[in-house]
Amino acid sequence: MAVAMISISLTQDYCSFKWGLPNGFLRKQILTETSTTAKLKFSCPPTLEASFKKTAIYVLSPNKSSPSVMMPELLDGWNDEYGGVIINPESLPMSANAFASAVQASLFNWKMKGKKGVWLKILKEQADLVPIAIQEGFNFHHAQPGYVMLTYWIPSGPCMLPDSPSHHIGIGAFVINDKRECPCSCSGVWKLPTGYINKSEDIFSGAIREVKEETGIETTFLKMVAFRHAHKVAFEQSDLLFVCMLKPLSSEIIIDEKEIQSAKWMALDEFIEQPYYEDDHLSNKIIDICIAAHEDNYSGFTGHQLNSKLDGRLSYLYCNHVN
Amino acid sequence: MAVAMISISLTQDYCSFKWGLPNGFLRKQILTETSTTAKLKFSCPPTLEASFKKTAIYVLSPNKSSPSVMMPELLDGWNDEYGGVIINPESLPMSANAFASAVQASLFNWKMKGKKGVWLKILKEQADLVPIAIQEGFNFHHAQPGYVMLTYWIPSGPCMLPDSPSHHIGIGAFVINDKRECPCSCSGVWKLPTGYINKSEDIFSGAIREVKEETGIETTFLKMVAFRHAHKVAFEQSDLLFVCMLKPLSSEIIIDEKEIQSAKWMALDEFIEQPYYEDDHLSNKIIDICIAAHEDNYSGFTGHQLNSKLDGRLSYLYCNHVN
Repeated sequence: MAVAMISISLTQDYCSFKWGLPNGFLRKQILTETSTTAKLKFSCPPTLEASFKKTAIYVLSPNKSSPSVMMPELLDGWNDEYGGVIINPESLPMSANAFASAVQASLFNWKMKGKKGVWLKILKEQADLVPIAIQEGFNFHHAQPGYVMLTYWIPSGPCMLPDSPSHHIGIGAFVINDKRECPCSCSGVWKLPTGYINKSEDIFSGAIREVKEETGIETTFLKMVAFRHAHKVAFEQSDLLFVCMLKPLSSEIIIDEKEIQSAKWMALDEFIEQPYYEDDHLSNKIIDICIAAHEDNYSGFTGHQLNSKLDGRLSYLYCNHVN
Repeated sequence: MAVAMISISLTQDYCSFKWGLPNGFLRKQILTETSTTAKLKFSCPPTLEASFKKTAIYVLSPNKSSPSVMMPELLDGWNDEYGGVIINPESLPMSANAFASAVQASLFNWKMKGKKGVWLKILKEQADLVPIAIQEGFNFHHAQPGYVMLTYWIPSGPCMLPDSPSHHIGIGAFVINDKRECPCSCSGVWKLPTGYINKSEDIFSGAIREVKEETGIETTFLKMVAFRHAHKVAFEQSDLLFVCMLKPLSSEIIIDEKEIQSAKWMALDEFIEQPYYEDDHLSNKIIDICIAAHEDNYSGFTGHQLNSKLDGRLSYLYCNHVN
């Protein structure tokens, strides 16, 4: 514990300040108290002392008849359902100084109110504010082109905010015709169409799109037969690759030569015998599953669009049929 | 097209510079050329003109006998397998000015070399560099506590860099004992244990952990019976929730009261009849599937640890059994 001394001007909020100290501050002693000023002595954890000294005065509303403290503006925001605050990204002060003061005052205010997680979205155009937010104790959470999201966890103890999105979702597409041929594309080796799904794209739609892009073949989705979960792939993040069976609706191969060297219908046996796949347990298992599914000896998951009353969402449930 | 005029000092690299112009710059005319200086006139797209004027001189090595051009340091980095560059985050100049010069010079250098995507990871401690990188044309890509990743796409045309991770992965756990009771936890309503998996955690491990955390029950994973794919959930990102069947290995309910109000073994019929779940098509379908799986009338996916020779990874393939 450390001791912090502070002189403050008395205001209408003084009493609530005196008694409503945020977690982590233990009021010890009123040293002097007149009708207009007070000198207080606090003990608080050393980690909070600097922040307290800087920001304590901000939480006091000025006495309107004799304002002795300038109140910095508080950041605009709204409460989330987990006891946290989401700062309105459109209300951030433009100047660095005003932003720093507003962050300090707001954090102190939220600490007093017992708030938990604070979410601060900074747009690309406001990037000057990023170092200031970091300096005030925020950390990076996630980012997308156009913005970065920062967070601040107020309570003591570990941060309970949800992690940033952690997974890329890919698809691998197994399309087979009556002659036991699959459309394959080539960028060195002949492979089944694969790719990542787009933002907010469904798995079955992503599979249909990738087959079309890589081979020109139109398809319809039959079922998802297996998926692979791999960790520490791109940027140390994780990857889910869903293997989908699709039925061809066209036969003409059309490719975009900027993207793909070549594509063709390839006999399944020829595909399997490529040395590239020999001894690759994962590929072999997946191909076995696809062949079994094609021969109706394997059941995968189909997609069912269902509404959830609980969260008001229409989404896809992928599941097997009940026997 | 715009016209850019530039005077340069001649160096040993002048000839390679004259002929080795990067994409987008068309050399038009040498206006004057002496043994030590040259005045060149270029036409280039208006968007590149400013960048060119600023950085053209950087690509010339100084003539060692009479150095007339200061070469800023280039950023250290390595090539990725897609024709791009990954900047070494440990080599970034600390000063804002040195960083800005190095970014400009490096981008020009990479443009000349026909590089594509540039990856710039900035650690929390270097956050001062974020606004400079944004000003030089970088955009946010993704972030994690401790760093933000920025990217720059050099070629004309749309950015072909992979998106940032887009999905949170959750689990819902259905555990049932011989008396047709499930361990449920309560935070307002009685619900099955659910939660997000941790970084690099497997789906089955996440399910076992969440059941333990929310109810204290030890379990073993049986199978994954269905999953829901929902879009525009937290931060406009997507969500995959995997419904897992687990077998209880213990029976004593133990909860952390800071996290959970209460938990108990709840008769399945009582659970289903909660008004909260009535008319919720998604919940009803999931419960039907879980009951069918418990009664051996439904087959889900089990996890198989397999090695892939292709990418050298040991990972889990979730699939059904082949009949």
